[in-house]
Amino acid sequence: MPRLKMGMIGGGQGAFIGAVHRIALAMDGEFELVAGAFSRDAENTRATGLALNLDPQRCYPTFEEMARKEAMRRGPDHLDAVAIVTPNHVHHAAAKCFLEAGFHVICDKPMTVSVAEAMDLVATVERTGRHFALTHNYSGYPMVEEARQRVQAGELGTVRKVYAEYLQGWLSEPLESSGQKQASWRTDPTQSGPVGALGDIGTHAFQLVEHVSGLRVEKLFAVLKTFVTGRRLDDDDTCLLELSGGATGTLHASQVCFGRENGLALRIFGTKGALAWAQEHPNDLHWTQPDGSVCLLRTATGATGAASRALTRTPSGHPEGYLEGFANLYRAFARAIRGERGPAASFPTVRDGLRGLQFIEASLRSDRAGQWISMD
Amino acid sequence: MPRLKMGMIGGGQGAFIGAVHRIALAMDGEFELVAGAFSRDAENTRATGLALNLDPQRCYPTFEEMARKEAMRRGPDHLDAVAIVTPNHVHHAAAKCFLEAGFHVICDKPMTVSVAEAMDLVATVERTGRHFALTHNYSGYPMVEEARQRVQAGELGTVRKVYAEYLQGWLSEPLESSGQKQASWRTDPTQSGPVGALGDIGTHAFQLVEHVSGLRVEKLFAVLKTFVTGRRLDDDDTCLLELSGGATGTLHASQVCFGRENGLALRIFGTKGALAWAQEHPNDLHWTQPDGSVCLLRTATGATGAASRALTRTPSGHPEGYLEGFANLYRAFARAIRGERGPAASFPTVRDGLRGLQFIEASLRSDRAGQWISMD
Amino acid sequence: MPRLKMGMIGGGQGAFIGAVHRIALAMDGEFELVAGAFSRDAENTRATGLALNLDPQRCYPTFEEMARKEAMRRGPDHLDAVAIVTPNHVHHAAAKCFLEAGFHVICDKPMTVSVAEAMDLVATVERTGRHFALTHNYSGYPMVEEARQRVQAGELGTVRKVYAEYLQGWLSEPLESSGQKQASWRTDPTQSGPVGALGDIGTHAFQLVEHVSGLRVEKLFAVLKTFVTGRRLDDDDTCLLELSGGATGTLHASQVCFGRENGLALRIFGTKGALAWAQEHPNDLHWTQPDGSVCLLRTATGATGAASRALTRTPSGHPEGYLEGFANLYRAFARAIRGERGPAASFPTVRDGLRGLQFIEASLRSDRAGQWISMD
Amino acid sequence: MPRLKMGMIGGGQGAFIGAVHRIALAMDGEFELVAGAFSRDAENTRATGLALNLDPQRCYPTFEEMARKEAMRRGPDHLDAVAIVTPNHVHHAAAKCFLEAGFHVICDKPMTVSVAEAMDLVATVERTGRHFALTHNYSGYPMVEEARQRVQAGELGTVRKVYAEYLQGWLSEPLESSGQKQASWRTDPTQSGPVGALGDIGTHAFQLVEHVSGLRVEKLFAVLKTFVTGRRLDDDDTCLLELSGGATGTLHASQVCFGRENGLALRIFGTKGALAWAQEHPNDLHWTQPDGSVCLLRTATGATGAASRALTRTPSGHPEGYLEGFANLYRAFARAIRGERGPAASFPTVRDGLRGLQFIEASLRSDRAGQWISMD
Repeated sequence: MPRLKMGMIGGGQGAFIGAVHRIALAMDGEFELVAGAFSRDAENTRATGLALNLDPQRCYPTFEEMARKEAMRRGPDHLDAVAIVTPNHVHHAAAKCFLEAGFHVICDKPMTVSVAEAMDLVATVERTGRHFALTHNYSGYPMVEEARQRVQAGELGTVRKVYAEYLQGWLSEPLESSGQKQASWRTDPTQSGPVGALGDIGTHAFQLVEHVSGLRVEKLFAVLKTFVTGRRLDDDDTCLLELSGGATGTLHASQVCFGRENGLALRIFGTKGALAWAQEHPNDLHWTQPDGSVCLLRTATGATGAASRALTRTPSGHPEGYLEGFANLYRAFARAIRGERGPAASFPTVRDGLRGLQFIEASLRSDRAGQWISMD
Repeated sequence: MPRLKMGMIGGGQGAFIGAVHRIALAMDGEFELVAGAFSRDAENTRATGLALNLDPQRCYPTFEEMARKEAMRRGPDHLDAVAIVTPNHVHHAAAKCFLEAGFHVICDKPMTVSVAEAMDLVATVERTGRHFALTHNYSGYPMVEEARQRVQAGELGTVRKVYAEYLQGWLSEPLESSGQKQASWRTDPTQSGPVGALGDIGTHAFQLVEHVSGLRVEKLFAVLKTFVTGRRLDDDDTCLLELSGGATGTLHASQVCFGRENGLALRIFGTKGALAWAQEHPNDLHWTQPDGSVCLLRTATGATGAASRALTRTPSGHPEGYLEGFANLYRAFARAIRGERGPAASFPTVRDGLRGLQFIEASLRSDRAGQWISMD
Repeated sequence: MPRLKMGMIGGGQGAFIGAVHRIALAMDGEFELVAGAFSRDAENTRATGLALNLDPQRCYPTFEEMARKEAMRRGPDHLDAVAIVTPNHVHHAAAKCFLEAGFHVICDKPMTVSVAEAMDLVATVERTGRHFALTHNYSGYPMVEEARQRVQAGELGTVRKVYAEYLQGWLSEPLESSGQKQASWRTDPTQSGPVGALGDIGTHAFQLVEHVSGLRVEKLFAVLKTFVTGRRLDDDDTCLLELSGGATGTLHASQVCFGRENGLALRIFGTKGALAWAQEHPNDLHWTQPDGSVCLLRTATGATGAASRALTRTPSGHPEGYLEGFANLYRAFARAIRGERGPAASFPTVRDGLRGLQFIEASLRSDRAGQWISMD
Repeated sequence: MPRLKMGMIGGGQGAFIGAVHRIALAMDGEFELVAGAFSRDAENTRATGLALNLDPQRCYPTFEEMARKEAMRRGPDHLDAVAIVTPNHVHHAAAKCFLEAGFHVICDKPMTVSVAEAMDLVATVERTGRHFALTHNYSGYPMVEEARQRVQAGELGTVRKVYAEYLQGWLSEPLESSGQKQASWRTDPTQSGPVGALGDIGTHAFQLVEHVSGLRVEKLFAVLKTFVTGRRLDDDDTCLLELSGGATGTLHASQVCFGRENGLALRIFGTKGALAWAQEHPNDLHWTQPDGSVCLLRTATGATGAASRALTRTPSGHPEGYLEGFANLYRAFARAIRGERGPAASFPTVRDGLRGLQFIEASLRSDRAGQWISMD
């Protein structure tokens, strides 16, 4: 089958996540990048397009112009979808623009900078009938899927405790003062939105909690804190959670845990078993069996189910990582665009994005009030 | 030097911690067990004494009688100290009785069942001038001491985050309904005091937090929960902490984390480094260096300091465990009795016991009020 | 820059390594697959080409026809290189054919089925001046490079001991009897060559030993064994090694270690330090420091050098795996083709392939003679 | 029951293993140390006896005098057994002397310095009917017993591969030149016997191989090497093994593996499962299940059998270590002395000691001849 044609908004030189999206979309040969509005800086856009061997005519100064012109293009080169990888404050406008122009959209998280924007995007997706994928990429890991399947099958019994953490250390120092691009926009409320660490990494942890446990967070008590002097957004967050079915939990998201790299980890304890998974060794799922022993389940082995095996490309013992997990979302997105339905064509959607914003806003309210806040 | 003569209150057949104390006191040849009031059940006391090869005349039906009669004994067989290893509600009366009879006391935790009792014990210790050791045994591990020394030396910079957890799974089921002795008294408010898991294991975690970080918990927000139907005390606790110097932290204590054995673990993040230690592999200390790499420091190696090496009995690579850590407290207690002073004769004291009860009462107040409570 | 145009020999449906090569060549956008002779089965070739969206005109029944016809093609579609991913017995003929037709070649290992063939290929490469890369992909891992750099810089002092192992379990049963394609050709001397496990995985371990240690194996004592009844080639091999500079070592290669997935691991001990690396957690390098503590060095962190960082695509904590390591070889191959020189354009060459065959033949001789054999 | 009375030969100040034996014998209250000939240096013996609070009359200048005088002592103070913890060359004479004087003997390994001496000791034990225990203490670990039980029950199927290693780094430098006591006698052929590392640690690994696998080493090919200049005995050994039932294996024993502490580890692969155990984390047994997943079995949990649970003193999660494993041998020795029979009173015997010497002599012959040597 011919490759789907993809455009990209954001992801110019100096960006991090744009390059990740480009590898992820290319990995399985499902997509081909053909157009972009990579930066507000026209020169950056030009250079990025050149480095990517794109047609200069399809490298645009603004996403609005790109949407307008690409929508007029017909034939085999017609654009199918766009990836939005800008700072957060642009997500809503760009996504809406391309959805309304008839394109499918895959967008980075947090989806928007407010619940209002998020709800508007939900409505836009429903109205346009386009596919919208949100890159909560960690749910693309095979062993996250393995965990989810097993919890869903009741292998843990009733879930009692959920411990999620996402600990990084890279913002232990005021890196934004040095002009480092990643740090700068993430700590700037005009680009990042009303929260820092909570949006950047807390929403990933939150999504993982609900996705794997199959439960909904009903109430939360949040403490948002800024450790680094002069920083304008939170860099260290703690949320106590009450989940549906009586479970409780804790979610830590911090960017000032010295030395921690990308420490997303999830532990769930039920009445009959338990699981632990950590992103930095993603092919390992620690599964506590009824006799209390902890079994190491490994990607693509005979001990795993069909759903997780479908998310791998190599035999067991050949570690797959962050890029492959990311690519799994792109592959599912491609299948949906090609008309496939069902689990293999599933990915986090606009509703997950809304949920993330609700989590952010509930946390802000809780932090300010010093009280438990209902998420319903 | 002749062995110190030791008596024991509690620790009859069917008990767990009594046997641990007996091994710990014997390990280094510092103490000899010569007397006991092992149980409220006279037959148990008799049988326990027989199994331990004790003089039946020194096996007493009550601790009061034991204190009275042993206080009259003179000469080389004179009792030096007693170990109190009963359920919690007996600690205060027994400790006070023996202190006032002139004996040194080593007592299990939590020290008492109320702050009032704890304060009374502080006063008693000060009045009698006897030594009082509290078996927060986890601070007896060499690598806990190594961690403490390094934090104290400023190697972490300023502490920002403290994550402590003590997760067990053995009370996931209502084990107390089956009559299991350990479960029964721990879940019975008349024996355990006003809290369950929080007193049994939470106080250990709390002591470790303050001991290693060198900081004081100033405020806390606690959620005490009971998962198992019919249980009368908390079996799952979460405390958010504000510590002196601006650090914050979380303390989890749960006995319903399916499959977890004795999962006490501590992580501390500072501005220049970080540490992680877990009780189940106690000879490993994970130390994050300034370049972000995590160094595995191991007991008794050249990478460790004199203070931690003094707590080992074997060369590196010969794992020491729970019993040796426990015995380290007994050894320090012996040294103090023999008149030694300084770090090698130091151990958790009556003031640490009071601190633990203050933690319990602050947590109860916070849980009831749904508010942050100051600990000062 | 425009993508280099790549062809593939072998890798039809049912193959494993062909798909790996396709992902690896696409990952960084350096290559585009445009032609192939995927199978001796024309229908397989046709279907494979269709699935890959290739021009049917460029899907050939034989590699000879492909070489002949592609050599005549001019212009922007001109083929630059081919990847040879067939069973071993085809490597020599196919590689020679394409080299002589003017193409660069990247070829799977073992390079050939005999030293004679290997020497002929060395001569062919020298004569044609084409680039020849051998996919000893494990040397493409960042932390393998980090290890190599540090050994080369003398950080271990003089190397004394090298322990290499490559343990798999997938051939514990006579899988070839069931017709499983991977097992069948690997255990068939007419396709695999004179050895089984030793060629398939032992050569990887051997290459890693010499590559990382910087030493040459001078003598070996090999025991080749077949555990599974009816199997025609070795499935379990042990080689004792004497290396240049006085070091000694052991190399284990087995495919009957029940449950092991892809257990390639290397440990090197020197006079001043030591290292350990294992392929299944490739982003971890365990580095023993002069004080004896073991430091966990992680991909892309500040603790690593420029050479290893250049082999990563994502920030630290974002695990890269087998496919990324593989792609690193392709990227270096692309750079060489584009005229770049130096470390970033380096990869295992035809001389490494010859070395592997020398290792195989020396091992066969040693096994038969029950004696140490010199490799020089 | 009254404690058994124990004497000690060797173990004066400056020794390592003597202190270990003293803790091990005291731990369970089974033995009391009452006499000793701790050193050839009378002053050391006196000071050691004083520090241990022994009767000076029972601290002897020679073991011969001790045996003679203690044999004449009657009544409750009568000596039951002696522990021999001297350098190797004294073992035979001391053991024989005490056995013939009517005492039970527990002796360190290697049992003697020659097969001839070992055979003489076998004959002496049989003639005198006394109990003789050899402190291959690593077989006292609960999870070693768990492994052994499971292998014996056929859970691995037929054993194919055995990998044993015992790697230390403490002799990487010529420590003996500095006069360090442990290093000096171990590298001195007049005290250590004909081998260094092979006797000191290789015999432990060998015993573990046969003990856990239940197989006998039938043939071996050994390479004994000395890395440190001037050292008179081997410090690095490799043995290839052929075991009964068709299994093969490798045994590494080295004391020049920089940074390694006490790295005894065993892996066994069968046709249906596999196991891995490492002494430095002795409460963990990695058990590969039929589906290929690796289960972490932990001491004293419900996943373990009665035999291993009987070797623990604390609930699961309370790590026991080297001293407890050692004490398990003493406890079994005590039970045998008290007349108990069966597994709980079993320990490595004089025949295991003979086996160790046969292993040493076969290895020496193989190393000299460069050939496989039969051990039968």
